[in-house]
Amino acid sequence: MKIVNYPDKEVWTDLTKRPENEKKFLQETVQNIFSEVEKDGDSALLKFTLQFDQAEINEIKVNQTEFIEAEKLVSVELKEAIKQAILNIEKFHSSQQEKPKTIETQSGVECWRESRAIEKVGLYIPGGSAPLFSTVLMLGIPAKLAGCKQIILCTPPDKNGNIHPAILFAAQSVGISEVYKVGGIQAIAALTLGTESIPSVYKIFGPGNQYVTAAKQYAQEFKVCIDLPAGPSEVLVIADSQANPEFVAADLLSQAEHGADSQVILLSTDESILKQTVNAVTTQLEKLPRKEVTQKALNNSRGILFNSLDECFNFSNLYAPEHLILAIGKAKEYTQKIENAGSVFLGNYSCESAGDYASGTNHTLPTNGYARNYSGVSLDSFIKKITFQELSREGLQNIGQTIELMAEAEELFAHKNAVSIRLK
Amino acid sequence: MKIVNYPDKEVWTDLTKRPENEKKFLQETVQNIFSEVEKDGDSALLKFTLQFDQAEINEIKVNQTEFIEAEKLVSVELKEAIKQAILNIEKFHSSQQEKPKTIETQSGVECWRESRAIEKVGLYIPGGSAPLFSTVLMLGIPAKLAGCKQIILCTPPDKNGNIHPAILFAAQSVGISEVYKVGGIQAIAALTLGTESIPSVYKIFGPGNQYVTAAKQYAQEFKVCIDLPAGPSEVLVIADSQANPEFVAADLLSQAEHGADSQVILLSTDESILKQTVNAVTTQLEKLPRKEVTQKALNNSRGILFNSLDECFNFSNLYAPEHLILAIGKAKEYTQKIENAGSVFLGNYSCESAGDYASGTNHTLPTNGYARNYSGVSLDSFIKKITFQELSREGLQNIGQTIELMAEAEELFAHKNAVSIRLK
Repeated sequence: MKIVNYPDKEVWTDLTKRPENEKKFLQETVQNIFSEVEKDGDSALLKFTLQFDQAEINEIKVNQTEFIEAEKLVSVELKEAIKQAILNIEKFHSSQQEKPKTIETQSGVECWRESRAIEKVGLYIPGGSAPLFSTVLMLGIPAKLAGCKQIILCTPPDKNGNIHPAILFAAQSVGISEVYKVGGIQAIAALTLGTESIPSVYKIFGPGNQYVTAAKQYAQEFKVCIDLPAGPSEVLVIADSQANPEFVAADLLSQAEHGADSQVILLSTDESILKQTVNAVTTQLEKLPRKEVTQKALNNSRGILFNSLDECFNFSNLYAPEHLILAIGKAKEYTQKIENAGSVFLGNYSCESAGDYASGTNHTLPTNGYARNYSGVSLDSFIKKITFQELSREGLQNIGQTIELMAEAEELFAHKNAVSIRLK
Repeated sequence: MKIVNYPDKEVWTDLTKRPENEKKFLQETVQNIFSEVEKDGDSALLKFTLQFDQAEINEIKVNQTEFIEAEKLVSVELKEAIKQAILNIEKFHSSQQEKPKTIETQSGVECWRESRAIEKVGLYIPGGSAPLFSTVLMLGIPAKLAGCKQIILCTPPDKNGNIHPAILFAAQSVGISEVYKVGGIQAIAALTLGTESIPSVYKIFGPGNQYVTAAKQYAQEFKVCIDLPAGPSEVLVIADSQANPEFVAADLLSQAEHGADSQVILLSTDESILKQTVNAVTTQLEKLPRKEVTQKALNNSRGILFNSLDECFNFSNLYAPEHLILAIGKAKEYTQKIENAGSVFLGNYSCESAGDYASGTNHTLPTNGYARNYSGVSLDSFIKKITFQELSREGLQNIGQTIELMAEAEELFAHKNAVSIRLK
């Protein structure tokens, strides 16, 4: 972790830089796999699954027996934990439902919005050693609450052709039954184009490596849309004299363990807290199983001393962190200073892992500075809002002249006529 | 207008096809202009403005004198009309503001969302013969209501280097003072990369031709986001025996006059209404100044007879129209049948041009089938929602074990430790 004391404003932008991801030329690979999936459908999926996941499978779709077997393999304790997380995530996301409000803009002119679920959505859950079943909850719960009619989940199988039982249990628990054993670019291609087994969808959600990210980018050329541009995970902590260095160190490490390209930033107004935290990071790191990866992420990371909390917030807004922890006294009084962040954790007991799993907020959040212009995933991500208007004859009379004058000034005479003909 | 009677379901998808836009290879042009704007800044903008708009200008930014002159050139009647439209648009969009709701998901675990404006936004207003000042209102009003700190408007000048007075009057009326005389790809490049005069922004809004659309697409590679993928405008009308053929014809024509690549679709359960409407289209067309363009759009258009309103709604949902007019008796009773649409107009007096200008709803809407997965522009388009959580010690105790179990199952031990260390 690089320490910087009282940086001049000119170097702030430099200090907000994320580790550069080698820009790989994946476009051609993505296009080739999309073409093969379009041409050969399921058989292309089976081929790529053998090639990339070293799994020989016959059936792409997870069957009922597999769900039943998976349930047996998950411990009672973990099941209880997952169920508790579901309750909290459901509670928070269902509060995001909105009732239509009718506004009479002028007498006889009523306008309102109604929400409709995106009918078909695809959820991508990465594979690898750690099964990210928590992401199944974070995407599946709002999709269900929104009322999406078709929810397709794709995730790569292990070498034996199996999906991790916790992923299947989580899917079943939130009511997702269409789970397919396919990962990587080929999964995104299937969700975009459809195959014999896998229906095409209108929107694709979920994290992934650079291949999945490039495939999601490419999918957008086929009228599919995506949740968020993905990037490595990150946290920024603002700590004042009331922070607990051991807690802050644990939060920094919990973000750094995600991957070598993760980044953690510590801002402080208190030199002693900054030093103690950096020392605690070194001590706690020793005990972590993912020590090596975590150390790499720490090499990309910074501790910065500032003169005031205002400077800390200004820097944080420039950085636009995915996760922002306020380890400061009376943290809630400072929320108005936050302009750009994905999810915010207030005070000494709101650790980031609470939001990652179980507080109820979503953990699919904008990274890499995208918190400047994107929200994290929420119920809103699974719906469209349709506007409605109903004008009575009187209503049209009231705004008719306004429309006629504006249409004429824009030289759109048929627009004008649509009013005139009704008021004749 | 092609008439189809009782089509079989197999041909429905074909009937939802939009006119194919020649896919031009604009990528290279876009990249070259972006590179020049990045390298040469304002002087590149002046060069391209001379090249593409045949305008020799010295100052890119519109000055106060130009605003004052513009105000004198707009008629009193049009000013009044614009002000009325502003009131209605403001009324409807301000109703979209949301207060934070705090949810206690478990005792001591509080979660909520707060909205923050996207700090810097760019609004693009196309030039050409017809000055689209109504779009200034549709983008500028929600940007102002959201509280965007910097609102940059770009629009191409005419050959004399002037901006249409109605555009400047509209901008001034909604409180936008930063207006720049630059259009096309170079405008989008400037908003993306910034120049000496024009600040870069985080999100770009607004319609445009295929060059602007390609440039907005490319802008996204620079961490900028955009409002909507753009496409030609379209309307679908569902008419039953209670529709007024003259009114419906006027609505179809008001959409068709937008451009040769526009499309209008009429669905009906009543053969006589369908025929009368098609006849009325032919008659009304004769009187329109944009007759030629309108006729071209009608060549891409269809009238389809269906057996039932249910079939009409099913087809409409498959088509996912930008504008949907229900010219049917008791239209409001059918809103639940609508799954995919941008903006909906209910009954015989809700003409589409009402929503284009003055009912209060936004006219920046998803086209080309994107109503399946996108909402139109609203206040939401100018904000991000940040999630917050505050856990007390008791709160963390209540969900601590859930987090620890899930983190361990995902093999993220530092995540687990962030809880354990606090509860020790």
